[in-house]
Amino acid sequence: MNRLNPGRGFVREIEIEKPVLGNNLADSQRLEMALKKELETDQVYIPWSQLTSLPSRIRQWGLCTRVVLFKDRRSWRLVDLLAPDHDRPVLGAAVDIGTTRIVIRLINLETGQALGETGLDNPQAAIGPDVLARIHYSNEPGGLKELQNLVIQGVNHHLALLASENGCTTEDIYLVTGAGNTAMTHLFLGIEAFEIIKEPYIPCVNIPDTMDAGDIGLNIRSCGLVFLFPNIGSYFGGDLLAGIIYSDLDKKENPCLVVDVGTNAEIVVGSKDWLIACAGAAGPALEGGMSKMGMTAGPGVIDSVSIDPGTKAVSVHTIGEKPPVGICGSGMIDLAAALFLSGMVDIRGKFVPEVCCDRLMDQGDIPAFVLVRPEESGTGEPICLTQVDLNSLTSSKAAMYTILEVIVKNTSGLEFEDLEKFYVAGTFGSFINPESAIAIGMLPDLNRSVFEVLGNSSLGGAAMMLTDPGAFDRVMAIRETITYIELNVNQEFMNMFSGAKFYPHTDRARFPSVPYQ
Amino acid sequence: MNRLNPGRGFVREIEIEKPVLGNNLADSQRLEMALKKELETDQVYIPWSQLTSLPSRIRQWGLCTRVVLFKDRRSWRLVDLLAPDHDRPVLGAAVDIGTTRIVIRLINLETGQALGETGLDNPQAAIGPDVLARIHYSNEPGGLKELQNLVIQGVNHHLALLASENGCTTEDIYLVTGAGNTAMTHLFLGIEAFEIIKEPYIPCVNIPDTMDAGDIGLNIRSCGLVFLFPNIGSYFGGDLLAGIIYSDLDKKENPCLVVDVGTNAEIVVGSKDWLIACAGAAGPALEGGMSKMGMTAGPGVIDSVSIDPGTKAVSVHTIGEKPPVGICGSGMIDLAAALFLSGMVDIRGKFVPEVCCDRLMDQGDIPAFVLVRPEESGTGEPICLTQVDLNSLTSSKAAMYTILEVIVKNTSGLEFEDLEKFYVAGTFGSFINPESAIAIGMLPDLNRSVFEVLGNSSLGGAAMMLTDPGAFDRVMAIRETITYIELNVNQEFMNMFSGAKFYPHTDRARFPSVPYQ
Repeated sequence: MNRLNPGRGFVREIEIEKPVLGNNLADSQRLEMALKKELETDQVYIPWSQLTSLPSRIRQWGLCTRVVLFKDRRSWRLVDLLAPDHDRPVLGAAVDIGTTRIVIRLINLETGQALGETGLDNPQAAIGPDVLARIHYSNEPGGLKELQNLVIQGVNHHLALLASENGCTTEDIYLVTGAGNTAMTHLFLGIEAFEIIKEPYIPCVNIPDTMDAGDIGLNIRSCGLVFLFPNIGSYFGGDLLAGIIYSDLDKKENPCLVVDVGTNAEIVVGSKDWLIACAGAAGPALEGGMSKMGMTAGPGVIDSVSIDPGTKAVSVHTIGEKPPVGICGSGMIDLAAALFLSGMVDIRGKFVPEVCCDRLMDQGDIPAFVLVRPEESGTGEPICLTQVDLNSLTSSKAAMYTILEVIVKNTSGLEFEDLEKFYVAGTFGSFINPESAIAIGMLPDLNRSVFEVLGNSSLGGAAMMLTDPGAFDRVMAIRETITYIELNVNQEFMNMFSGAKFYPHTDRARFPSVPYQ
Repeated sequence: MNRLNPGRGFVREIEIEKPVLGNNLADSQRLEMALKKELETDQVYIPWSQLTSLPSRIRQWGLCTRVVLFKDRRSWRLVDLLAPDHDRPVLGAAVDIGTTRIVIRLINLETGQALGETGLDNPQAAIGPDVLARIHYSNEPGGLKELQNLVIQGVNHHLALLASENGCTTEDIYLVTGAGNTAMTHLFLGIEAFEIIKEPYIPCVNIPDTMDAGDIGLNIRSCGLVFLFPNIGSYFGGDLLAGIIYSDLDKKENPCLVVDVGTNAEIVVGSKDWLIACAGAAGPALEGGMSKMGMTAGPGVIDSVSIDPGTKAVSVHTIGEKPPVGICGSGMIDLAAALFLSGMVDIRGKFVPEVCCDRLMDQGDIPAFVLVRPEESGTGEPICLTQVDLNSLTSSKAAMYTILEVIVKNTSGLEFEDLEKFYVAGTFGSFINPESAIAIGMLPDLNRSVFEVLGNSSLGGAAMMLTDPGAFDRVMAIRETITYIELNVNQEFMNMFSGAKFYPHTDRARFPSVPYQ
């Protein structure tokens, strides 16, 4: 999806018409003409900073130059002019601006090749773990600036490291593209975000302009630009638009679905002919849902669980195969599925004491399933799943299924079986075992080959924006055509939601492949 | 020419649509909608800096705001958002960026009213008196930056004084528009200018973009913009385009002519249907011509001269009626006319010793006319006009007449008598006595009512750009339609020039009203 058509990307060689007597076109006009011809466009923007020494540079280069470009909704833009024999790499950086995790990929703009990737926890976590806490903080005096500085300085630091690991410097970086949810986009750009979380949930910006990187403090080449993906609404961010172009959903012949299981559940269904989107945070059941289920992946974190249906023996797998210290979201889905399939959790999502036996203890007055006994734990404490945790997971999985049902069936008029592909995007999504997600009724019971993990589609889409000059127009076309459904949490939704709170569902016929009694 | 249509200028009141559930337009989009509606346009640019605190500002103001705008070739642009009850004046500054003199006018953008005006000698004169010397210097290391700093700091200083004299601060200034010749425009913007004076005489920029004032170091409101008039070529600057809109030449039913007698003689002739322009510096006879004739106006400078044809008694008038210290250009034209009409200079432009008598002395081997004797002089030295000075004036006046003849007769196919108006623009031009200029054959012998002094049309045009949102499109339309004639100094020109070197002309019939023997 991310291959560069050589010579068709953002780095081009052009030749400027020789000035002669009797033709009073200015140097900048002849440069503009050469760019328009090369790019087959009517609109080119040349910033003042590229003009100040244009006459001497182009003459010194014999009127040949390598140009670094970008294309946004207004026009093609000249980013820099380089000597024809400029021998440094010309790089861009794609950034997935996640609420929890930020991932940066360094890309050679001439070849499209990815040079390397690095990640960092979003430094805004020091202020608050979730979007809500950060937006509240941004409303305090100086809070917005502090949040912006945290993320920008974090990106600057890791960008410099990543460049240096690849034998480059930040001077070699001309473009930064980023995709994040609407709140992260606002905080990255230093734009007030608090109306996003207040009824009627209005972002300040849906289509951020391309900006000088220096304007927001990004340390790249001084003439460098930064572009963040547009949002569609407060709960439908640029990360999902990035996911749409990365999955090629807007080019599909038959309906497909992309679900990003991140902090919110964001879903798009459609094809080249139509696109319908919906974001889950509008439903109270999902509020703080998925993200609260577990800890972030890391050494010792349980990422998969199985229980022998006969012996009820529990076995866990941890990241790095270290002694277990906790459980992450995908591990919890595995655990819930295993508990249900072994009969230790009933169809109402309640622990069954007589099956759990000594694995069940009381924490306060709340039943808790002991997944790892203290003696096997990396922390010396038992690792437990309480009934409260499980109820929360149940609500989340029910909300996810209901939202999928609403958007696919009620809104698009399809059956789940009409979906040619079911793409699971997002870092969290990449670790989900579809088998387990289906067993608990979180995802519909489709042929397993229909599911495809997209990985970090937000990063993938941001990277496409660096190598494909057509990507911007695609994103804008998607914005124009997509129908955004505000999830209407009415009685019908609540009825559907109630049915989906069962394991896997009150309507057994929907999950024929799930082997439970 | 400069009256503001109330509420149709660059300051408007708008109301932003109230955000409601079910409409996920961002604040910036609703602002954009309100601007598009108010401005009846499809293109509005809102800079990032106006977005960062947009949500809180518009809500605090009850969704009403006063907007400060500008319009350039790309779109309308939002400059600033103000509270509906903002009680400071909203100002702009128009700047005539002359090679010798800079004039600044402060204008209330809401009323169109001029608050005050100030002038300063172009501080670049410290580097070199003329364009040529400064461009050579700009090619030295650091020279360009130094020249730019000089002019910008000079403007900053006087802008602050002017604002303060009017009870305002530079924070109240949102827009700066400027008009200058092509070289001054480049140096003001810090853009390399040396190709302007080297064959094939190519400017770097013909249409400068609107810029953030801060980008070039102008101290006005931090969100303020600066716009300089476009050029048509190296020898056809924005000052003349400013003059065209100021004179309304592009709206005239019948042909009129504008001549700017500045450092170069720049001429435009035409009407609403066509425009032909020509700049004199292409003619070697005018090189350094007019500007070298005299000193700048100032106290004690002789600005008019008369000689009694009978008694040959000389009387001079000085600026401020101070003891005479020198003579300025308009004074020299008066002097030459008086000398000629009194028979002290012959039709070849040579002093006639027998008529001049004791007014003629030798300076070295060069005859010199003693205009002011040492005892009457403010300097204790005689004030003289040498034959060399007079020859230079003769060449200049002949070049001026020849260029006028070429553009009006040879190029436009008109007679001088077809001109409905003959506008004399430029500060220097304002002081010229048409009677004298006609007597020496510098200007054609037309009915005196045809001549009209425009004053500082460069400043006037720049001021129109601050109050009339339609001015920009007019300027761009003029640029598109105007035909720029490179003055072809061929044998025909030289023949015409030779005839024009006589007083007033070899062809006496052309100057029937000039009373000479």
